Amino acid sequence: MTHTFEQKLSELKKVVVNRMDEILNKTEPVTLWEPMRYAISSVGKRLRPVLLLLVNEAVGGSVENALDAAVALEMVHNFTLVHDDIMDNDDLRRGRETVHKKWDANVAILSGDALLVLAYSALHRNPSDKLPEVLNDFSSGILRVCEGQTLDKEFEARDSVTLEEYFDMIDKKTAELFSVACHVGSILGGGSTEQVNAMKIYGKKVGRAFQIQDDLLDVISDEAVLGKDIGSDIEENKKTFLVVHALENADEEQKKKLYTILNKNNITADDVRNVIDIFGQTNTLTAARNIVDECLDDAKKALLSIPDNSAKHYLSELLDTIAKRNS
Amino acid sequence: MTHTFEQKLSELKKVVVNRMDEILNKTEPVTLWEPMRYAISSVGKRLRPVLLLLVNEAVGGSVENALDAAVALEMVHNFTLVHDDIMDNDDLRRGRETVHKKWDANVAILSGDALLVLAYSALHRNPSDKLPEVLNDFSSGILRVCEGQTLDKEFEARDSVTLEEYFDMIDKKTAELFSVACHVGSILGGGSTEQVNAMKIYGKKVGRAFQIQDDLLDVISDEAVLGKDIGSDIEENKKTFLVVHALENADEEQKKKLYTILNKNNITADDVRNVIDIFGQTNTLTAARNIVDECLDDAKKALLSIPDNSAKHYLSELLDTIAKRNS
Repeated sequence: MTHTFEQKLSELKKVVVNRMDEILNKTEPVTLWEPMRYAISSVGKRLRPVLLLLVNEAVGGSVENALDAAVALEMVHNFTLVHDDIMDNDDLRRGRETVHKKWDANVAILSGDALLVLAYSALHRNPSDKLPEVLNDFSSGILRVCEGQTLDKEFEARDSVTLEEYFDMIDKKTAELFSVACHVGSILGGGSTEQVNAMKIYGKKVGRAFQIQDDLLDVISDEAVLGKDIGSDIEENKKTFLVVHALENADEEQKKKLYTILNKNNITADDVRNVIDIFGQTNTLTAARNIVDECLDDAKKALLSIPDNSAKHYLSELLDTIAKRNS
Repeated sequence: MTHTFEQKLSELKKVVVNRMDEILNKTEPVTLWEPMRYAISSVGKRLRPVLLLLVNEAVGGSVENALDAAVALEMVHNFTLVHDDIMDNDDLRRGRETVHKKWDANVAILSGDALLVLAYSALHRNPSDKLPEVLNDFSSGILRVCEGQTLDKEFEARDSVTLEEYFDMIDKKTAELFSVACHVGSILGGGSTEQVNAMKIYGKKVGRAFQIQDDLLDVISDEAVLGKDIGSDIEENKKTFLVVHALENADEEQKKKLYTILNKNNITADDVRNVIDIFGQTNTLTAARNIVDECLDDAKKALLSIPDNSAKHYLSELLDTIAKRNS
């Protein structure tokens, strides 16, 4: 049966969501399982598990064989979101109240913890000879995500950060789980060493592109489409690609203006507009778009190690979708 | 070589601590690895890993074979402490500032998360044919700990809780990790099905005794020995064995007095003394001591399935130590 790209994506999403619903089937205690279900039931893109399943298929694997790992990865991702939202004090996520806002921080800490444990459960419940390698990839990946989130928070308290430090941070915080998705997908699918390595690169590049685009969307998106406030990164003094690049390329006056705004306690809509103006004057928005394009090009090249098949085709189409995303 | 009980305990503790130090050898980012090391470097009793190693030895296993699991369990335990301390807003733990107090809640959330992931890493880094069973036991155990902590927090907001609900809560929150310790220890040591089942019971009973004693120590201990404030459970409106038993056995006047104090926002030293008086009048302190003794007796009986050896002897001595602990 031939699918269009959208059909394929929606089919894979459905398989992932159904399996997660099966796993999260408990009701008591209410203030643990309800927020867990709430956290995983958003209208998210499910990019990471979909990537894992597509890569798995592209190297010759079956969905059933990789589904638990895909579901585990999506639960890990949601665990990080629930905890990050507490730390970033974000009230909205994809247009809905965050867990700590709808319940409280304690509930969010615990339901995040439990999602992480449930992810491991999903991962090891059907042990295969590849389990040790997959577990190792997951654990070292999640640890790097924790390191990336730590750096992100450390950077908020710092005046400046180099682009090198920025890339190290997003490679850990964001690109890592994309890389794990593609690595684990290709291992479970029985890919060759060359394919496994190429898919890790594909994942890492997609992840970088995704994060820099996230940074961009914070200032150029439509609030209703984005599902959260515009300029919230600026408000939190996040060292996004935009801020780091702008500071590296600003003249003294622009730099002074930027620092004044970023260090303010209450940032107004005018402040956000002024910052975006400086992003424009320092060619920062263009630079961000260029890096996104470069990353997606690199990812496309990594696909050369995969034989022609429909899943490979979808992985290529996915790059175009990411290039065009607006939320 | 013959050891005294204290020598044996201190030797096992040392092996566990050394292996944890080896694992936690990273330094960057500082605000992740430093609090992780701080969290595991306390003067704790290391009861859970010691139990795991003793049970493993009692059924014929070698320390080296079970050490990673023991270390994993201790890291899981410390992960729960770091997160629980945020939720309970506790400033002190074993006489030292808690992680969220010394750094902040964000650092405590992340370093707790990372400790959990590192525990899994330790668990799966030397895969054996028993890995799936051990992983399953760990994950379902930690999930139950999260459920127990959720119930503990839910109960704080409730006026009354039955003794049945109380036991369900502490079996999950506290006894579970003791049970996992003994279960995993006996599996890794190659124990028979009968021994594995008996050791699970041993662990669960030790865990129950331990928690009820914790409840007792909150009101009868010396602050300096305990390393935290006396009466802090009362302050947080925790549904300890003492409160639940006292409410079930109080007359109307005592009940009214108890509720008045427990629902106050600022509890004084006088309030704490009044509550302890009611605990005395309702025979609650005696009842608590009796249950601790019963649990330890049951645990001793469970040891009958183990052949006579020095590790079994230590497991028996451990029960006496727990009976006498004052912090």
